[in-house]
Amino acid sequence: MAILVQKFGGTSVANAEKIRRAAKRVIKAVENGYSVVVVASARGQQTDELIADAFELNPNPPKREMDQLLSTGEQQTVSLFAMALDAAGYPAISFTGGQVQMLTDNVHTKARIKSIGAERIKKQLDEGKVVLVAGFQGVDDDGNITTLGRGGSDTTAVALAAAVGAKECEIYTDVDGIYTTDPRIFKEAVKLEQISYDEILEMASLGAGVMHSRSIEFGKKYNVKIHVRSSIEEKEGTIIMHEVPQMEGVAVTGATVQQDMAKIDLVNIDNKPGNAAKVFASLAKAKVVVNDIMQTEVSSKKANLSFLIGISDLTSAKEAAEQMKEEVNCESIFVREDIAEISVVGVGMRTHYGVAERMFGALAKAKVNIDSITTSEIRISCVVNKDQAEEALKVVSVAFELDKAPKERTK
Amino acid sequence: MAILVQKFGGTSVANAEKIRRAAKRVIKAVENGYSVVVVASARGQQTDELIADAFELNPNPPKREMDQLLSTGEQQTVSLFAMALDAAGYPAISFTGGQVQMLTDNVHTKARIKSIGAERIKKQLDEGKVVLVAGFQGVDDDGNITTLGRGGSDTTAVALAAAVGAKECEIYTDVDGIYTTDPRIFKEAVKLEQISYDEILEMASLGAGVMHSRSIEFGKKYNVKIHVRSSIEEKEGTIIMHEVPQMEGVAVTGATVQQDMAKIDLVNIDNKPGNAAKVFASLAKAKVVVNDIMQTEVSSKKANLSFLIGISDLTSAKEAAEQMKEEVNCESIFVREDIAEISVVGVGMRTHYGVAERMFGALAKAKVNIDSITTSEIRISCVVNKDQAEEALKVVSVAFELDKAPKERTK
Repeated sequence: MAILVQKFGGTSVANAEKIRRAAKRVIKAVENGYSVVVVASARGQQTDELIADAFELNPNPPKREMDQLLSTGEQQTVSLFAMALDAAGYPAISFTGGQVQMLTDNVHTKARIKSIGAERIKKQLDEGKVVLVAGFQGVDDDGNITTLGRGGSDTTAVALAAAVGAKECEIYTDVDGIYTTDPRIFKEAVKLEQISYDEILEMASLGAGVMHSRSIEFGKKYNVKIHVRSSIEEKEGTIIMHEVPQMEGVAVTGATVQQDMAKIDLVNIDNKPGNAAKVFASLAKAKVVVNDIMQTEVSSKKANLSFLIGISDLTSAKEAAEQMKEEVNCESIFVREDIAEISVVGVGMRTHYGVAERMFGALAKAKVNIDSITTSEIRISCVVNKDQAEEALKVVSVAFELDKAPKERTK
Repeated sequence: MAILVQKFGGTSVANAEKIRRAAKRVIKAVENGYSVVVVASARGQQTDELIADAFELNPNPPKREMDQLLSTGEQQTVSLFAMALDAAGYPAISFTGGQVQMLTDNVHTKARIKSIGAERIKKQLDEGKVVLVAGFQGVDDDGNITTLGRGGSDTTAVALAAAVGAKECEIYTDVDGIYTTDPRIFKEAVKLEQISYDEILEMASLGAGVMHSRSIEFGKKYNVKIHVRSSIEEKEGTIIMHEVPQMEGVAVTGATVQQDMAKIDLVNIDNKPGNAAKVFASLAKAKVVVNDIMQTEVSSKKANLSFLIGISDLTSAKEAAEQMKEEVNCESIFVREDIAEISVVGVGMRTHYGVAERMFGALAKAKVNIDSITTSEIRISCVVNKDQAEEALKVVSVAFELDKAPKERTK
């Protein structure tokens, strides 16, 4: 029998009524002939409450104990979920991460999965049971409980889907799929039927985060079809999958805007090998996550070095940059907090010409000034003034017909 | 270094403040040179809340899933407790039952311990850490989580004390020790310095239940000194240990009263082999727990058969007795709900004469009528009218000088 993995987030299992509703989804899949593996998160605000309990006792709780504590939330959900299925007449069995040999490294609070023992799960599926696995958690080689960090339950679900050879991994969430762009800004945005791993990875890293990048990377690596869909409505959501030829039919699949950004310019630094490396080493030491990097030669001896960061990292980033100022012989440091980044993403860019022109043209026509530009193979990003960000997203969305499904677009 | 096991019940770890207070006990023991193993229960009402969550989803939750659910409560406590110790500068590590190979049979919700892997605990103690173990839980041979039933955390503590060869197992509770009798009735009752396993087992089964019988049986079997003491006050409590000669210096160590009892008399049944067995088989089938049994011959052909039960079992017990009425040719069934049982317990009874006379004399002097009498090697019990129960306990307590410590008594 084909295996289906279904993942339910914390809001979808927050109370008895919601667990029963989620159980109905499982039952429907069983009735449709699937063997079902369920992955669930901690109920509602449980994880936050446990974190508060921990910090009440220790301002800097040991990470191993934090994992020991937080993993209980998911364990509670899956046992309760199994009880709900049992009450409806569907035999079910719940497992902790450790019980299904979800082996990870020993980096507590952000462990990475090394391997999964699928035998125990398959045996139970073969016996006709629904198997429930606590999300977000694993064990290291010594049997210590670990957790996978942000988005961990998605990663558990995708990894399990790979391990058991599931037909699909369904991610039930409070949105009904992935949209061409943010519908709160461009209300004509449409839901995508499918999107490639690479595209969603670019979009996720740009802040359109329905799912955490790690689970997508896992899906890409092990070729797991991920179906992001609504936990409330019945309709189909968006399939995240490997690129297929028709995805290249359009140049741009979606557009994103990333606000809460800041840009730091190091003006007129000495243009010699290793200077950029020194700056970014200093930023890394200060734990600043750098998004885009731009370097331009001013002369044979001088260059400007710019980079984008999250606004929350601004203080540390400024300090780190100031510390390097003398060493790289920087004339002045210039900080902009009033910016945002608009990006268009699409695997079709590889074969379509004129994407950049179309984007810049739309922005120019709307009198949006472009501060700087960066690109990847399947993405073009422009830094613009923050107060023009929403207008910029709208005109770009219109230019690329993001109000239409890819196959209905004219170009 | 000598090892000390300290067990804290749910009320002693109900919130952050109480966990910190319990941690101070641990720290004191560490400062006194002990290696400390802590066993803790679920915080406050957590277990009851989880049970309510389960029954909201399933009126008859599968026991395996119930264990999976309930075991999280203790896991949370020990990780939080470890954080509290860490915050105070004392390195600590928490374990689930499974992580310390607390192997049990697979009888979910009332599993029995088969073996404990002490190596992991000893290794951590040797590294100078306080080791915390989640009480009440274990794993079966297949890695399924099991729980030990009522009083399970006490059993965990005593079993761990046996496994690691602890000097003593301290049970912190909301009473400050074991008293000669119930101080709520006989306010002059005194705390015992020590009591034998056999005596506390007789008293526990008679309803003076500070600790569950199973943990005492474990202590007796593996010779673990159990120290029952207050989680609030500093003073010494009561040591439960193997009988030592001075315990026999007095006839009676303590007295108990068991209320909420009922007595059923089967009057004039056929006095032939197997009839009593038939009655008790019928009661067992109805899941009635029978306390004391009394049979008296009325003639060579007829006998009266009486037994004591808890009042909550009365309806089932009456039904079971009625069903057997014809088969044993019983003339009439007589039920008394207005009774209580007064008992005196002491290993000294084995060598002291006149205990029964002293007890019956005290009751007679106070005009307490004795309905029936049963005895064991170290116990004498009298069934009396319920409305005379407290008076009976008082006069018996005075007769045996239960207002004095054993060594201070005159006889």
